[in-house]
Amino acid sequence: MKYLYYFSKNIHSAIKQDPPGTWMPHVPKGCVRLSSGFPDASLVPVDELSQAVTLLLNEERDLPLHYIGSPQIEKLHTQLLERMTERNISVKREELLITSGACQAIDLIARILIDEDTYIILESPTYMEALEIFQNYTGRILTVPVDEHGLNTDMLEELLVKRKQKGKPMPKVLYTIPTFQNPTGTTMSITRRKHLLNLASTYDFLVMEDDAYGELHFHEPVPTLKSLDREGRVLYIGSLSKVVAPGMRIGWVAADREWIQTLFRFKKDLDHPFAQSVMATFLASVDWESHLQSCRDVYHRKCHAMIDALTTYMPREVTWTKPDGGYFIWLTAPGVDTTELLNQATQKGVSYIPGKHFCLEQEHGQDKLRLSFSAAREEEIVEGVRRLAEVLGRR
Amino acid sequence: MKYLYYFSKNIHSAIKQDPPGTWMPHVPKGCVRLSSGFPDASLVPVDELSQAVTLLLNEERDLPLHYIGSPQIEKLHTQLLERMTERNISVKREELLITSGACQAIDLIARILIDEDTYIILESPTYMEALEIFQNYTGRILTVPVDEHGLNTDMLEELLVKRKQKGKPMPKVLYTIPTFQNPTGTTMSITRRKHLLNLASTYDFLVMEDDAYGELHFHEPVPTLKSLDREGRVLYIGSLSKVVAPGMRIGWVAADREWIQTLFRFKKDLDHPFAQSVMATFLASVDWESHLQSCRDVYHRKCHAMIDALTTYMPREVTWTKPDGGYFIWLTAPGVDTTELLNQATQKGVSYIPGKHFCLEQEHGQDKLRLSFSAAREEEIVEGVRRLAEVLGRR
Repeated sequence: MKYLYYFSKNIHSAIKQDPPGTWMPHVPKGCVRLSSGFPDASLVPVDELSQAVTLLLNEERDLPLHYIGSPQIEKLHTQLLERMTERNISVKREELLITSGACQAIDLIARILIDEDTYIILESPTYMEALEIFQNYTGRILTVPVDEHGLNTDMLEELLVKRKQKGKPMPKVLYTIPTFQNPTGTTMSITRRKHLLNLASTYDFLVMEDDAYGELHFHEPVPTLKSLDREGRVLYIGSLSKVVAPGMRIGWVAADREWIQTLFRFKKDLDHPFAQSVMATFLASVDWESHLQSCRDVYHRKCHAMIDALTTYMPREVTWTKPDGGYFIWLTAPGVDTTELLNQATQKGVSYIPGKHFCLEQEHGQDKLRLSFSAAREEEIVEGVRRLAEVLGRR
Repeated sequence: MKYLYYFSKNIHSAIKQDPPGTWMPHVPKGCVRLSSGFPDASLVPVDELSQAVTLLLNEERDLPLHYIGSPQIEKLHTQLLERMTERNISVKREELLITSGACQAIDLIARILIDEDTYIILESPTYMEALEIFQNYTGRILTVPVDEHGLNTDMLEELLVKRKQKGKPMPKVLYTIPTFQNPTGTTMSITRRKHLLNLASTYDFLVMEDDAYGELHFHEPVPTLKSLDREGRVLYIGSLSKVVAPGMRIGWVAADREWIQTLFRFKKDLDHPFAQSVMATFLASVDWESHLQSCRDVYHRKCHAMIDALTTYMPREVTWTKPDGGYFIWLTAPGVDTTELLNQATQKGVSYIPGKHFCLEQEHGQDKLRLSFSAAREEEIVEGVRRLAEVLGRR
């Protein structure tokens, strides 16, 4: 690198790796987009947000357009606290920090916790954007597999026991999406949740709980790790991206006061007062529970349609997860290189994300792929799965 | 700190210092707010932004509310590039990165360049938010005074020569607001701009040029450092906060491609697609040159009113800068402790920011204070200055 001399030594190991950017397939026109983790267009409250802007600016004029000043920003805090209370997450005002989406939350937490000597634990597979963020901070990443009951805590315990025995450095942080995981759609069982928190206590590490999909349960709601946490080890990350609109970039962290204070210090002026004020105005204007229920119903129906289509069309050896919520299904096609197959698939008219992009050890994702049922219409989902099955069957 | 064990070693020295947060005075009701760096309320295009939102969401529906997708985001890049071209800053698309305000730009650049061993140079006084951001990365901060012609480059040269002679570590980055500086309102002369760039070349450091106020010239425009830079040493930081609305959080970096690529990598998903799309729609709908001219006229008039009032009311020993643009005047009251005086002043009905908050060595700002003529109305400015003069005269 021409400019290596000038770079911070803290990023030297990161910048020696591959160029940046979350990987997304090229999707030709007319292609069914099962790659995209966007919300369903009909569930994005376009008119309500537009009306919220008009109402807000009529009432408050320039106030929400300055750095600070709109009372809506405090209102958004109250709304998020109330919603968490309803979900048995008991958090005080000073334990809440609003961020610019879940990604800023993850990046900020990484910034205050992780240096290049810090060992961390990720699920395998995991959210690819988070994987990239963590790789920007450390190369010392351990992984634990996810199965149909979420993160395999027995394997986690085995890993921790072995490292302890061998006197190896112990991890300080574990990042998990316990509920309707991205990319697998699986959910960590209650038994494992408790096991994980016990391990965190015994081996003294923190847990970053990314709950971006938690509200989107097709059946019973699942208790968050944060609601089970008795030691303040869980840094909870929430987001309105999947239930309102990602472009509004409203996320948050709920954690002990000392964490929030430090996160706030490093966040600096990176708030979005306007977006936050609009969101508060919007939330005050809708029946939130009924909006969430519509989201759950639509995604449940779409998930069902995708599973039906998979059952109908897929070759026998292909298997997939059966989510109880969220946006994604994780598919295993034994013997297939899903990266190689993608070109054929998009030519045939369907896109997905190859499994390797969600895995630190990319070979672990070679015969896997992520399908999203969130954005495409039901009939597109069926047709997309049919096309994918054809491509898989033809090999 | 209870949790010190868990923190990244990269922030250990930062978190041992004072608690976070940009300092702002408590301003009682009825107080003339000369502390606030907000734009004039009448210049914030509330209705135009509201209309832009309505237009955008009517036309594009959910597109600008997803992570990516709205063509407006690319349009905003074009608009910023065109505007820079008009100001003789010749930058290609791949040399531009839109950020969440100038603060994200400063923080991101600091992140990729500065570790706790990096020496940097700041102006004294300087933008307090930037000072806090840099202190989050390094304690090795050198300062060079600003006088009525901006950063004193002779003193900078002296500092560099001495460090070189003594074999001390040399600074890698200098941060400056060369035009209508925050907090002094002064502007670096052309001679000094060239001198600075020569020094950067000779002593091999980079220059962060914060140009948040550059468009707000009362007379002739001033050439940016970036437009004079022949070696790619300047990382230019632009912002629409002072000329449209801070709450929209639109800033940018213009710099060589390798910098932009690395900044992009660390910025991750921290864009604000909605805010960016609204801004592009707004910019397409206004006569930008005429909007800027209105801003210049209003701030010129207010600055004039403030200087007139200062001349009329201030005790003889008090002096102040005479800005050719921007938002601020820097006042020196020999023998006064402006931090101690603030309580009296706000009781008397006027607020300001004590000079120490803009200085790394806080004692350098003891008898200084920053007055802002941007937000208060003209008659308020006159009355505020009168009140301040009374408090200063009474001591």
